[in-house]
Amino acid sequence: MIGLLIISHCELGNELLKAAELIMGRLENADAIAITQTSGSQEMIDSISEKIETMNEGEGVLILTDMFGGTPSNLSLSFLGDEKVEVLTGVNLPMVISAAQDRHHFALGDLGERAKEAGKRSIALAGQLLKSE
Amino acid sequence: MIGLLIISHCELGNELLKAAELIMGRLENADAIAITQTSGSQEMIDSISEKIETMNEGEGVLILTDMFGGTPSNLSLSFLGDEKVEVLTGVNLPMVISAAQDRHHFALGDLGERAKEAGKRSIALAGQLLKSE
Repeated sequence: MIGLLIISHCELGNELLKAAELIMGRLENADAIAITQTSGSQEMIDSISEKIETMNEGEGVLILTDMFGGTPSNLSLSFLGDEKVEVLTGVNLPMVISAAQDRHHFALGDLGERAKEAGKRSIALAGQLLKSE
Repeated sequence: MIGLLIISHCELGNELLKAAELIMGRLENADAIAITQTSGSQEMIDSISEKIETMNEGEGVLILTDMFGGTPSNLSLSFLGDEKVEVLTGVNLPMVISAAQDRHHFALGDLGERAKEAGKRSIALAGQLLKSE
């Protein structure tokens, strides 16, 4: 099963997983790393590297980060050369839920594309959503 | 100043505010409500209503929710009739940071539109982002 790893500032990633589990039930092979500093370090890169190795069951790991340009994203980008890692920025709850559902049916590249679209589609002004229904 | 109120499952909203403050410094008139149940209640509606009243300094309150269709969004939708409330779904960190910056320069309707676009724009596959730069 493709691994889902959320790397974020503070406990954002853990709370996203908790919220997703409240809605979907327990998620296997899903984890989060909290970054509480505004600059990266070799130690953090090593701990991400270990986590990826543990979570990769052969089908790869989708890393979801909170914001392009932030430390969690910058740290994650160093793993992009690895063909078993895909990095998607701007994580929100619908993206996590979509990825958790779709990873049973799609390979890593397609999973990233679908989670990206699900995340974007979920962002809407509620008044406009209700009018268009 | 327009209020920023994040209503989410679990502590997602509080962690988004913590992450935004780690990056931007202390945010005034910004708060979060954590919903830990999968169904709403009159008590929750009352507590959101009180929070909106406290946070509305005349320019209104932008409510950011985690997912359209979830309990936090459903509860928030009952305040849509109020012209001083706008509800934006699918909250992520770039949306919070954008809204926190823009609320000094835009009225509530425009702020919602801009935060929506910032949130959508921030969701990208990092490999594609790097190639296009």
